[in-house]
Amino acid sequence: MRLKIKRLSWFAGRPVVILSPNTSKLLNVHVNEKVKISVNKKSFYAVVDVFSDITKDNEIGFSYEVMSFFNLKKNSFVEVVPADSTKAGKIINKKINGEKLSKEELKEIIKEISNNNLTEAEIAFFISAEKIHGMSLKEIFYLTKSMIETGRRLKFKKDIIADKHCIGGIAGNRTTPIVISICASAGLTLPKTSSRAITSAAGTADTIETIARVDFTREEILKIVERVGACLVWNGALNLSPSDDKIIHIERMLNLDVEPQLIASIMSKKISAGSNHILIDIPYKGGKFPSIEKAKELGKKFLWIAKKFGVKLRTVYTDGRQPIGNGIGPILEMMDILKVLKGDGPEDLKEKAIYLSSELMDLAGIKNAKEKAREILESGKAFEKFKEIINAQNGKNDFEKRIKKLKFARYKKEIFAQREGKIKEIDNKKINLLCRILGAPETKSAGVYLYKKIGFVDKGEKVITLYSESEKKLEEGIKYFKEFEPIVFRQV
Amino acid sequence: MRLKIKRLSWFAGRPVVILSPNTSKLLNVHVNEKVKISVNKKSFYAVVDVFSDITKDNEIGFSYEVMSFFNLKKNSFVEVVPADSTKAGKIINKKINGEKLSKEELKEIIKEISNNNLTEAEIAFFISAEKIHGMSLKEIFYLTKSMIETGRRLKFKKDIIADKHCIGGIAGNRTTPIVISICASAGLTLPKTSSRAITSAAGTADTIETIARVDFTREEILKIVERVGACLVWNGALNLSPSDDKIIHIERMLNLDVEPQLIASIMSKKISAGSNHILIDIPYKGGKFPSIEKAKELGKKFLWIAKKFGVKLRTVYTDGRQPIGNGIGPILEMMDILKVLKGDGPEDLKEKAIYLSSELMDLAGIKNAKEKAREILESGKAFEKFKEIINAQNGKNDFEKRIKKLKFARYKKEIFAQREGKIKEIDNKKINLLCRILGAPETKSAGVYLYKKIGFVDKGEKVITLYSESEKKLEEGIKYFKEFEPIVFRQV
Repeated sequence: MRLKIKRLSWFAGRPVVILSPNTSKLLNVHVNEKVKISVNKKSFYAVVDVFSDITKDNEIGFSYEVMSFFNLKKNSFVEVVPADSTKAGKIINKKINGEKLSKEELKEIIKEISNNNLTEAEIAFFISAEKIHGMSLKEIFYLTKSMIETGRRLKFKKDIIADKHCIGGIAGNRTTPIVISICASAGLTLPKTSSRAITSAAGTADTIETIARVDFTREEILKIVERVGACLVWNGALNLSPSDDKIIHIERMLNLDVEPQLIASIMSKKISAGSNHILIDIPYKGGKFPSIEKAKELGKKFLWIAKKFGVKLRTVYTDGRQPIGNGIGPILEMMDILKVLKGDGPEDLKEKAIYLSSELMDLAGIKNAKEKAREILESGKAFEKFKEIINAQNGKNDFEKRIKKLKFARYKKEIFAQREGKIKEIDNKKINLLCRILGAPETKSAGVYLYKKIGFVDKGEKVITLYSESEKKLEEGIKYFKEFEPIVFRQV
Repeated sequence: MRLKIKRLSWFAGRPVVILSPNTSKLLNVHVNEKVKISVNKKSFYAVVDVFSDITKDNEIGFSYEVMSFFNLKKNSFVEVVPADSTKAGKIINKKINGEKLSKEELKEIIKEISNNNLTEAEIAFFISAEKIHGMSLKEIFYLTKSMIETGRRLKFKKDIIADKHCIGGIAGNRTTPIVISICASAGLTLPKTSSRAITSAAGTADTIETIARVDFTREEILKIVERVGACLVWNGALNLSPSDDKIIHIERMLNLDVEPQLIASIMSKKISAGSNHILIDIPYKGGKFPSIEKAKELGKKFLWIAKKFGVKLRTVYTDGRQPIGNGIGPILEMMDILKVLKGDGPEDLKEKAIYLSSELMDLAGIKNAKEKAREILESGKAFEKFKEIINAQNGKNDFEKRIKKLKFARYKKEIFAQREGKIKEIDNKKINLLCRILGAPETKSAGVYLYKKIGFVDKGEKVITLYSESEKKLEEGIKYFKEFEPIVFRQV
């Protein structure tokens, strides 16, 4: 069908075209389906949106992205037909049918996702086939490789670039800023990029954001890392692995864990960020894995993939039965981090940070890593490095001013042990959900402070404080706490 | 987040809300994800679209559907948060993990799809899990039942309501208008609703549309069927099974055949349309099934489900190795139908129509069905009934005028046998694709006319004519024909 281009005055953030209801009916395409648009002997695909009163029946509305990307003129004509099943569509069908995909096929899928040529439903089909049938190590390797190749890479002058990653699921557990500060202080280069919270109370990016800017361009990151040896930034705007961001957006609709995708996502982002010495922390029990054996199965896959890419990788397996640290929520976690860096603070967070730092330093060839990591932290050198990083990200030396602004939320509820007993378990998922009910991570000061961990508690001891900026949310949090028992208590 | 309602001046055809890029970032929701909107102690879900310059950062744009559905006032405030994983999301996760779903769980999924509460990616996750893990007969039954219960039903005064369905995949094969005319002439009531083409050259609705209106309301259909005993209308606007229309829209993105969904889709639409005597035609070899055994496996499932609903159902298995009839494409098929009804026309189409009619009549308790079906067709009674139906749908007696307007396309290419030989096979899929390249079904006159079927051909005999309204498309069709050989020819 021949249609006239109408340039729309707004950005959609993705190539989208608008049709009138009549035109979409005639073309037999629905919202979110694709059309093939041909003009000047070139053709491209775009996803359709249907609105009345935006375009006439003989028009096709182009978002700014489509206009500029394809260098089109308004009022010119294009030929529009429903898109055929694409090459990528056929490959997804193969995976649904349980077949293995080749290097070229995986590359095609990832290229098409990056270029916005697949609908969200098509990506969901791919992910669920991957989830249900699994992927061979070879497939995961080629998937990762394609994801790296479609993104942009960071290049540093140093030979050793280090990074750490935790597979997640543990509330609190904000070791990253401490580990990065210790290792950078030991001379390593660590361009650390982190995500925001998806289902947890805070991601590293949310926590750092309580005292520093976290969104930077690649060029800015290169400068910061060159100056202070490390950064603690958000990975969302870097385009390191553009297909990965889209895939994660689909996975989170169902909170789906897809193991091949998890490995490819982590490895592609680390390698794109230039890392060649990588520590992977896989918590078991209470995290995503019921046993250390299950955690090790995943660990082995990471090791195999890393070897194929020629990067050094080490896995560690940590106890995930309860949250790490006392504060959970962006500001509460930042308070814990600052305490640990000042030589105080929750012992479990401190010891885990030293352990992870020493493993990463050892991997990078630093001798006596264990003693060195502890010395760097306890001497205050790590704290100085942390200040440097934060000031570099903020572009001014106002660290002290910023940390003074960290405040507890306005409303709180302290909960005490009603009788003597034992805390048997602290459910990470429920604690995260409790914090989200209280307003985290959107409200930076919301969350909980855990006074007690697994073990004995006396009658009348303070167990937990709930924090919120809203009385209503605090009430909802209290209700949730009572009903769902994130802290499992047994009378003795 | 508290946002002010901005009423948008356009319809989106579905509940959608518009956020600014900044607001979507703050809420951490992306395009096509859902938000939960709370106002006046009620809350509902809506899918997000993100555009700049449509809403300010403190506003949320509501499509007309959202405004009217929830009875909202412009400039009032709503509370907006990212939607949690819903109940339906958890059920989809279960199916992905290979578990069986209960009656209540399937009902929840179908209800949420009908109410637009699931994103297309979530529906895709459900469908692919269904495709890969399959469904038990019980699951298919409850799926069908839920689909019927969420839609609206047609109710007729007659006791016996009959229908037929072909599982498809065979090019041409337009028996429906003939079968309906024969059976209605024999006294049966047949509220026949059909789809448009998805991947084929024409659907029954596309073909009937060459001479009649096909889009009607439920009330109009009841009147037409009451008057003339049958109809031949499009099922798209009837809301008989609203979830099914959405599921089909997702399936066609990958041209996916999902067997449980196929059974549920057909059975729910038939039962919603009031049918209680149903004939299912399952072609094997060349259709969707490689062998009659595979076709019968599906047939058995239909019989089981029908029994559970207390409706009479019969399956027939027909040879699908080549197209049925000579013309393929909306007008070309209509010309075949008219010829058969007038006592002439392609023998295979005529005999198949008589066979299917007699089976359906026999199922409905009509004695000597085989002889009667033939007599009705050959005596011209079926043709008279067909005229009645078409005139009823058009609201005037201009049948003759309309069929005179049926014309071949402007450009054609006749292809002759280069030498003596044998046609081994005529590939239905390739023939359909060839017709689509020529412009069908959008261009009603486009398509092909097959002069020869499987069997011997003399040198110089005409084999096929390609029709198109565009010289360019005709050229592309010729190129496709030569390159992909939809007609497999062997020299003898």
